[in-house]
Amino acid sequence: MSPDSFLSDTRERLESALETSLPAADREPRRLHKAMRHAVLGGGKRLRPALVLATSQCCGGSTDTAMPAAVAVELIHAYSLVHDDLPAMDNDELRRGRPTCHIAFDEATAILAGDALQTLAFEGLGTTQAAPGQVLEMMRVLAEASGHQGMAGGQALDLDATGGHPSIEALETMHRRKTGALIEASLVLGALAAGASETSIGALRQFGRAIGLAFQVQDDILDVEGSAEKTGKPQGSDSNQNKATYTSLLGIEGARQRLESLSESANEALEGVTGNTELLRALARFIVQRDH
Amino acid sequence: MSPDSFLSDTRERLESALETSLPAADREPRRLHKAMRHAVLGGGKRLRPALVLATSQCCGGSTDTAMPAAVAVELIHAYSLVHDDLPAMDNDELRRGRPTCHIAFDEATAILAGDALQTLAFEGLGTTQAAPGQVLEMMRVLAEASGHQGMAGGQALDLDATGGHPSIEALETMHRRKTGALIEASLVLGALAAGASETSIGALRQFGRAIGLAFQVQDDILDVEGSAEKTGKPQGSDSNQNKATYTSLLGIEGARQRLESLSESANEALEGVTGNTELLRALARFIVQRDH
Repeated sequence: MSPDSFLSDTRERLESALETSLPAADREPRRLHKAMRHAVLGGGKRLRPALVLATSQCCGGSTDTAMPAAVAVELIHAYSLVHDDLPAMDNDELRRGRPTCHIAFDEATAILAGDALQTLAFEGLGTTQAAPGQVLEMMRVLAEASGHQGMAGGQALDLDATGGHPSIEALETMHRRKTGALIEASLVLGALAAGASETSIGALRQFGRAIGLAFQVQDDILDVEGSAEKTGKPQGSDSNQNKATYTSLLGIEGARQRLESLSESANEALEGVTGNTELLRALARFIVQRDH
Repeated sequence: MSPDSFLSDTRERLESALETSLPAADREPRRLHKAMRHAVLGGGKRLRPALVLATSQCCGGSTDTAMPAAVAVELIHAYSLVHDDLPAMDNDELRRGRPTCHIAFDEATAILAGDALQTLAFEGLGTTQAAPGQVLEMMRVLAEASGHQGMAGGQALDLDATGGHPSIEALETMHRRKTGALIEASLVLGALAAGASETSIGALRQFGRAIGLAFQVQDDILDVEGSAEKTGKPQGSDSNQNKATYTSLLGIEGARQRLESLSESANEALEGVTGNTELLRALARFIVQRDH
């Protein structure tokens, strides 16, 4: 199955699961619920949940069992975007061509909506139909990837670095946490939901680490080369904020080489996985070659 | 055991458990870790964790087994204070006589510290040494009490109500969620950690609902009658913000009667609990009679 047809096949089920997981807009507190729905249901690539579902499929698991994990990673991702967009953070007014949560509602509501989306991620993940010990391990993986050792920690490192001139190692550490940790967790969660072996889980984790970083390298390349129309943000917006990027530190050719090498590591990692890895290989190519 | 001696006996173990659960201040990202520690280790009544530990003791459980739940409710409480104090919310610069998190650090760091504290609460609760199914149920209880149906939802109702004239029913719905839900969850979590019977858990939940609301009624009475020195906030600070309170809606005598009736409901509920409820009765008296 091509990643395009996989993504469109699972898309409808995923959107429906996200919709069902969110509180109804006509129940109190309505403004909060509307803000939560605005933050999650406004489109997006749905890359992380697609990785959860593809990994589960690769390891012979069912989509139903993996769905709460797919929803949970997307809710964590959505909450992080709502908080990152706040005036005190990146101060962004548009995302995917729509007003950000604090613009569509207000700052206080956006803070609370992000908070409640994080809670909902853990609440929903707890409903996974698997052995309780397995579900607890999934909760642990999601928490580690989201908190001070993962995504939130990476965002803090990013704040500290703005205006500075970090080394490539410091840049990678930041990205491994800020973006990489949740992508890596998406692989591990899909594998855990499918009851994969320790060996396969380890190999999928390596694959996730590589594509998580590759995703960011391609983001930086698109920031220089992509069209604003496709990426949905002004060209050069990161470099204009005086943030170090792969392209600013390695040059465009150096960044392309790094991308190529991460892509090779990703494919090598998959050799340690028991299962049909074709779809994951295709998703890795999609990440590396995407134009938005 | 008197609540005072119980609180001081468990205090040291609790503070030590909170300290250990938090990331070290000398590990990166240091600013985030320092902000998380500032938010949690700055004192406070520790009422919620005391309720978890007292309930577990009442039901014959061990303090060690209940400690992760005690830590988790305090981390959720601390994260909510950090976010409530933000300029876009209550805009408070002082808490317990110390600068609030966004004043001691900065707004972006305070947002992230709150986020990471919430994650840490779920991560830590997952380490409870009990049957995985029991631990999952505890995670569910904490999530429900914290999210859009609980604390975050109550805060949203509070934002919506500022400047309005809600009914006493609307005020109670808001408080049941904003403050009551986490206090009620503290009772349920302590009971679950101790493996209490369904009947006892139900009765303890009722007790928690009553004292959760009683806590808020007494807060409103103290806001009118208490000294700024003891409560740590200016007298009349809530009524000055044009917020409806029990005293503004019922008068001071009406509020006192409501407090008395809640206190009776709390004690009645304890009759359905198997175990020694003396300590919980004393903690309920402490809540109703406290002067700060």
